[in-house]
Amino acid sequence: MRVVITGGAGFLGTRLAQALLARGTLTDASGQARSIDRVVLADVAAPASNADPRAQAMQGSLDDPAFVERVVTPETDTVFHLAAVVSGQAEAEFDVGMRVNLDATRALLERCRKCTKPPKFVFASSLAVFGGALPDPVPDEAPVTPQSSYGAQKAIGELLVNDMSRKGFIDGRALRLPTIVVRPGKPNRAASSFASGIIREPLSGVEAVCPVAPATRLWLQSPRAVVANFIVGHEAPAEKLPAFRAINVPGIDVTVAEMVAALRSVAGDAVADRVQWRYDPVIDRIVATWPARFEARIGRTLGMRGDAGFQDVVRAYIEQDMRPL
Amino acid sequence: MRVVITGGAGFLGTRLAQALLARGTLTDASGQARSIDRVVLADVAAPASNADPRAQAMQGSLDDPAFVERVVTPETDTVFHLAAVVSGQAEAEFDVGMRVNLDATRALLERCRKCTKPPKFVFASSLAVFGGALPDPVPDEAPVTPQSSYGAQKAIGELLVNDMSRKGFIDGRALRLPTIVVRPGKPNRAASSFASGIIREPLSGVEAVCPVAPATRLWLQSPRAVVANFIVGHEAPAEKLPAFRAINVPGIDVTVAEMVAALRSVAGDAVADRVQWRYDPVIDRIVATWPARFEARIGRTLGMRGDAGFQDVVRAYIEQDMRPL
Repeated sequence: MRVVITGGAGFLGTRLAQALLARGTLTDASGQARSIDRVVLADVAAPASNADPRAQAMQGSLDDPAFVERVVTPETDTVFHLAAVVSGQAEAEFDVGMRVNLDATRALLERCRKCTKPPKFVFASSLAVFGGALPDPVPDEAPVTPQSSYGAQKAIGELLVNDMSRKGFIDGRALRLPTIVVRPGKPNRAASSFASGIIREPLSGVEAVCPVAPATRLWLQSPRAVVANFIVGHEAPAEKLPAFRAINVPGIDVTVAEMVAALRSVAGDAVADRVQWRYDPVIDRIVATWPARFEARIGRTLGMRGDAGFQDVVRAYIEQDMRPL
Repeated sequence: MRVVITGGAGFLGTRLAQALLARGTLTDASGQARSIDRVVLADVAAPASNADPRAQAMQGSLDDPAFVERVVTPETDTVFHLAAVVSGQAEAEFDVGMRVNLDATRALLERCRKCTKPPKFVFASSLAVFGGALPDPVPDEAPVTPQSSYGAQKAIGELLVNDMSRKGFIDGRALRLPTIVVRPGKPNRAASSFASGIIREPLSGVEAVCPVAPATRLWLQSPRAVVANFIVGHEAPAEKLPAFRAINVPGIDVTVAEMVAALRSVAGDAVADRVQWRYDPVIDRIVATWPARFEARIGRTLGMRGDAGFQDVVRAYIEQDMRPL
């Protein structure tokens, strides 16, 4: 079978590709387990090298219809749509966010309608679709009232994925991801970028700024757990999905102070003391609209899992992701 | 001030224009009451004649950017966006629905960003944004999980109106309208078209088909009440609106059997006996996903009102809307 990962050069896309190639099979929309012949890694950025002959990098922009046509060929069986403009950039550059997060998603979905058989379509949505006053923990049935452009664009993507699934154009699943921590690499323009930075930078001997208060609570998930949950979301039989196919992915609920304390207990005072507290109202305003705790009942029923605890997340990052200094 | 009504040749747009011209003033986005100098009636169809010198008909399609540019000039103060492809057509012709209900809404909103001052933007949304299992009555905070393409497209419009309001591009308000009964004129391709037809046609001596069961419940509002509620929604001060600016408009909750009984008591047996019961699963499937009773607490607090009862609705139609036979 032919699998497409958009954002395939990103760290999640790279990880997901590795996991899929190691696994070797996926269940297609008709319920058949099939071996993976091809994983297309589509991205605007140059892809990470992948020695596996089944991996195929394609560099280009999803706002180019010719590129979308080459990426999603008629025989495509599955699309994991991870490409997105992150929250901070989508807020600062409204038009860029609309073009990438909305128009490119729609272009991909439209292209999927042309596939020989309706493909599975796993959409990386986000807890940012929620905002404003909500019960704590947030139930699966909570209303979607985003308070950021990123959240609004992801919510629109969910509606498109759902309606096109209902019409039988695709077999879609929107997964509302927790904030992913620890992202390796450099800070990005996500409002949540600091949540990885305050762990990653101190471990590399670099100071990191925390722009929100220590008591700020976040709903987190490690890259490893997210990749596993992507696969669970893909494999779930259509008849087990909720009527509206947007699923709150389980995470763990921690305060920023607890994150730094976990870093301290795993890596010591010298490391943890590299976190600088410097309040940024623009970041805080976006992050504060995101709920920090979810029931994620449907996700758990489908077999999705959160991490065991934040110390584990820090240790896994050190063991698996840290570049040697 | 300059007011634009899209769908201005439709019966609701025509009624709204009459009400605005009779009223003479509206409150602009800065809170100032201003006299109405111009009401632009934009529509693909030829507009109804309007002798008032303040009324200006513009015929064209909202998917033509040049037309949108002429309709929403920089000095526009208010847009009532009523133009839409109705539910039955949006379901049968997915691409047409997307183009009119989504793309044209977005084009209008984008054009509003170019106005000298952010205009008010009243968006005619629909109870069709709801679907699936919901509490009865539906609370204002119910999740939006549409089960029709029309509902999905309206829900996307709400997200755009909200996010652009939050960004300060417009001062938007999305009003989720009940099914409007009795629409004068001919049947249309709305799944709810029968709800007007079973009153209108028998009163004109013509048989009408009811495609749903007598026990089917509907959430209804008369044209007169909808027009009044549009104006209430426009006039509501921004600070009284909910954080997510979508408002369930109050209606009345009646079964189809009660509708026919009201027709019988107002117009007699001979008229009511012209209703033919002929089940249509396609229509019933769409209508059955719409909830039939809403709390509409926020709408009522803002001053929106439902009709007094369905007999009144039938009488008002006979007195004000029926064309002489």
